[in-house]
Amino acid sequence: MRRSQTVQEFAAIAQLRAIFRDQSRHVELGIGDDAAVLSSAGRLVWTIDTAVEHVHFERGWLSLADLGWRSFHAAASDVCAMGGAPIAALSSVIFPAGFRASQLAELARGQRAAARALGCTVAGGNLSRGSELSVTSTLLGAVSRPILRSGAKPGDELWLCGELGWAAAGLRVLQRGRTGAAKAAARRALAAFRRPQAQLAAGLALAGRARAAIDISDGLAGDAAHLAKDSGVQLVLELPALRASLGRALVTLAERLGTAALQLALYGGEDYALLAAGPMRKRPAGVRVIGRVQQGRGVWLSEGATLTPAAAGFQHSGGRKAPGVGR
Amino acid sequence: MRRSQTVQEFAAIAQLRAIFRDQSRHVELGIGDDAAVLSSAGRLVWTIDTAVEHVHFERGWLSLADLGWRSFHAAASDVCAMGGAPIAALSSVIFPAGFRASQLAELARGQRAAARALGCTVAGGNLSRGSELSVTSTLLGAVSRPILRSGAKPGDELWLCGELGWAAAGLRVLQRGRTGAAKAAARRALAAFRRPQAQLAAGLALAGRARAAIDISDGLAGDAAHLAKDSGVQLVLELPALRASLGRALVTLAERLGTAALQLALYGGEDYALLAAGPMRKRPAGVRVIGRVQQGRGVWLSEGATLTPAAAGFQHSGGRKAPGVGR
Repeated sequence: MRRSQTVQEFAAIAQLRAIFRDQSRHVELGIGDDAAVLSSAGRLVWTIDTAVEHVHFERGWLSLADLGWRSFHAAASDVCAMGGAPIAALSSVIFPAGFRASQLAELARGQRAAARALGCTVAGGNLSRGSELSVTSTLLGAVSRPILRSGAKPGDELWLCGELGWAAAGLRVLQRGRTGAAKAAARRALAAFRRPQAQLAAGLALAGRARAAIDISDGLAGDAAHLAKDSGVQLVLELPALRASLGRALVTLAERLGTAALQLALYGGEDYALLAAGPMRKRPAGVRVIGRVQQGRGVWLSEGATLTPAAAGFQHSGGRKAPGVGR
Repeated sequence: MRRSQTVQEFAAIAQLRAIFRDQSRHVELGIGDDAAVLSSAGRLVWTIDTAVEHVHFERGWLSLADLGWRSFHAAASDVCAMGGAPIAALSSVIFPAGFRASQLAELARGQRAAARALGCTVAGGNLSRGSELSVTSTLLGAVSRPILRSGAKPGDELWLCGELGWAAAGLRVLQRGRTGAAKAAARRALAAFRRPQAQLAAGLALAGRARAAIDISDGLAGDAAHLAKDSGVQLVLELPALRASLGRALVTLAERLGTAALQLALYGGEDYALLAAGPMRKRPAGVRVIGRVQQGRGVWLSEGATLTPAAAGFQHSGGRKAPGVGR
């Protein structure tokens, strides 16, 4: 590696300025001054999320463009779960010695593609050296009526926006390094892990309809438990409806991976689907009804007349969201 | 260390929620949901800054409360340099294995103290494991007329808000581990390094008066060069005025540290003072005039009739600010 190809700070800023040159009506001033300047009116939702090498990802699992995309959509998912639309982002990258300018550019292009897909721009950021690669994304979103975790009421339906289990299957494919024969399904699972899609349209459709929502980043069981606790209600997940949502291809792939599709959906994580609760008469088009809200506590799995408690929930390999901002 | 004392994710969030319970008229919803919710109207300035262990600090140099304070004010300094007032912050902490809940709380209390000193609150954040400690702070500030780096005009005065050289002296004290006899001066230098003060009042006083401003985080020479380049002008720093700003105690301490106070001021860094340019008739109270703006390029040091180019500028041990947000 030539020295001149490693990240040189001032050159890197110029390079990033060129990559993140997108215009946005909200961003008055982007890269290059002490801070970005935004124009805004009304309510904003604001989140921060960090992806750390060896904790949340291995570089062998995905390209740097994938990492840029994935870390951006993971942060955006929090904005979408509140019913907001991302308007701008800042990114802080810690990079190890020997990280090349071309690698930083590839990461930034993945972030740019992710931002464009969500209708927003990267307005600034920070570069630091460190011992391991990490990407921190902070996003601001516009929102009129934020959907909290705490509003679900007995009698509400439980709505699923997006698909469960595929990203966790993709992670297992990467960890095992082989899948047997299910090539097409494995490709789909890898794509779900590497290029998750924050549920922007679904989150916007929930606004004014759902009484509560959360993004499903740690597996349905665990995130449903947060919603149940914060709303002071019991959630009943209907296993037949959940199974029907999974599809034959995922069921087969999961079996080849030595697990079950339902296991991946409940305890897998990284899907960035949304779980919402709301009254039947306000159900938006395109959501899947997977259960109901009732009085009580906790999350239960329903199969015919049988109710069993959903397990404590999947603790994924990485850190956990703290203040203000679940993942 | 007892296992139960290490950071447990859900307990940590509850702990941080208690520490960051401050109210703010801008924060409608703080810690505990997918994202924070803010109310805002008008323009916002937005910055992100990261402090990485072994790069920007060593844990032996300062307490975790100091680290929380210092990393917060370093980020706030960017908001102040734009003439803004911080309204809220998010924090993302990467912590190594074995980091204790009490350590996280100490760090958070330093952040809370810093936020209170600046009239804002910590509205959320993120926790991740990693191999080394790092603290990323993102701040939003309210601003009516942001002061950019690019507005200085020939004929403007150069104004210094805050003091230079002390933080760099403090860093050298820490690196050497001794100072000789200048105990009081060493204590002041250590405090300047550990508890820098973002120039909130000074930045607000510059709004409507200064035509350009930048925060001095990498030494006066280097940051003046950014302002000169972005404004397309030449800056002349008057050495007698600069020397007069330094004071006898710093001069003596610097000598004991084997350097010169002027060297620390020009090439030291971490002061978080502000450099601004504006017309004499608009000079705010309390600033020190340290030079002038004229046609041309670059930064020059003036001593009587002699002009010498300021050196290329101090590159401190850490990373460099990128997009949108210098430091």
